[in-house]
Amino acid sequence: MKKCISPLIAVLIATASMNAAAQQAPKPEQQIKWRQSVYQVLAWNQARIKANVEGTFNKEEVIRAANSTAAIANSGLGALYGPGTESGKGWRETTVKPEFFSDSKGAAEVAISFTREANELARVAATGDVALVKAQFGKVGQACKACHDDYRKKD
Amino acid sequence: MKKCISPLIAVLIATASMNAAAQQAPKPEQQIKWRQSVYQVLAWNQARIKANVEGTFNKEEVIRAANSTAAIANSGLGALYGPGTESGKGWRETTVKPEFFSDSKGAAEVAISFTREANELARVAATGDVALVKAQFGKVGQACKACHDDYRKKD
Repeated sequence: MKKCISPLIAVLIATASMNAAAQQAPKPEQQIKWRQSVYQVLAWNQARIKANVEGTFNKEEVIRAANSTAAIANSGLGALYGPGTESGKGWRETTVKPEFFSDSKGAAEVAISFTREANELARVAATGDVALVKAQFGKVGQACKACHDDYRKKD
Repeated sequence: MKKCISPLIAVLIATASMNAAAQQAPKPEQQIKWRQSVYQVLAWNQARIKANVEGTFNKEEVIRAANSTAAIANSGLGALYGPGTESGKGWRETTVKPEFFSDSKGAAEVAISFTREANELARVAATGDVALVKAQFGKVGQACKACHDDYRKKD
């Protein structure tokens, strides 16, 4: 399975970004740094779940990682893709493609897909069923990949 | 991913993480990068809650930010302070003090305090009571500061 750095890119838009903009928006560089950090935290959670489904399965650790993933997915990531963040440097230069901003329908779709799969992962993690977690983890990975394929430049 | 369980490493990680399951530990630099990212995501959530309690209060946004904060606090952050992470570079050089590793009782206390206050923040956010959120947001800030004062080098 491919390593999924994190999908959120998309996530954002879907909803609440508009209303974050109503408050004073953080500077573009700050938004980029925060979203790059978000994807790293998602990557950490993915790595932990991967280790659990491939090795010794610790239900509690998987629940923690899945809940963190879902909470982040639900947290309104679109707010970190505000005006002026199409290029620029956070921790490093952003790798987002211009299409992410111009193709709002497609971007919304990958965001919604990621959020849906992340929430489902949290749901199945709570059951402790390893096979279900493994299958759903794969779907989250596919949601990550769909966004990366279309909207993330190669490193 | 290979399962590697050196008993010593397992014990150290489990200790540091207050009971995270020890699969193969990620490299120290990776752990440092992930934990630095975790703090940035927490900072983003804090900034959003601050903007809401000081400006126009959007209950749904506060809930999202508080839930994300709590889920991260509950997610077993100790696992990112494994052996070899006392110094080194993630996104940048770590600013953790050696005391964080030598004073395990004190480190556990600040970790428990932060987790408790973050969970309480998620609870009061769900009520939509601005005054309660504001007061609890202050307590989360105090928990952050207590750890920074004792265990984080100045930038």
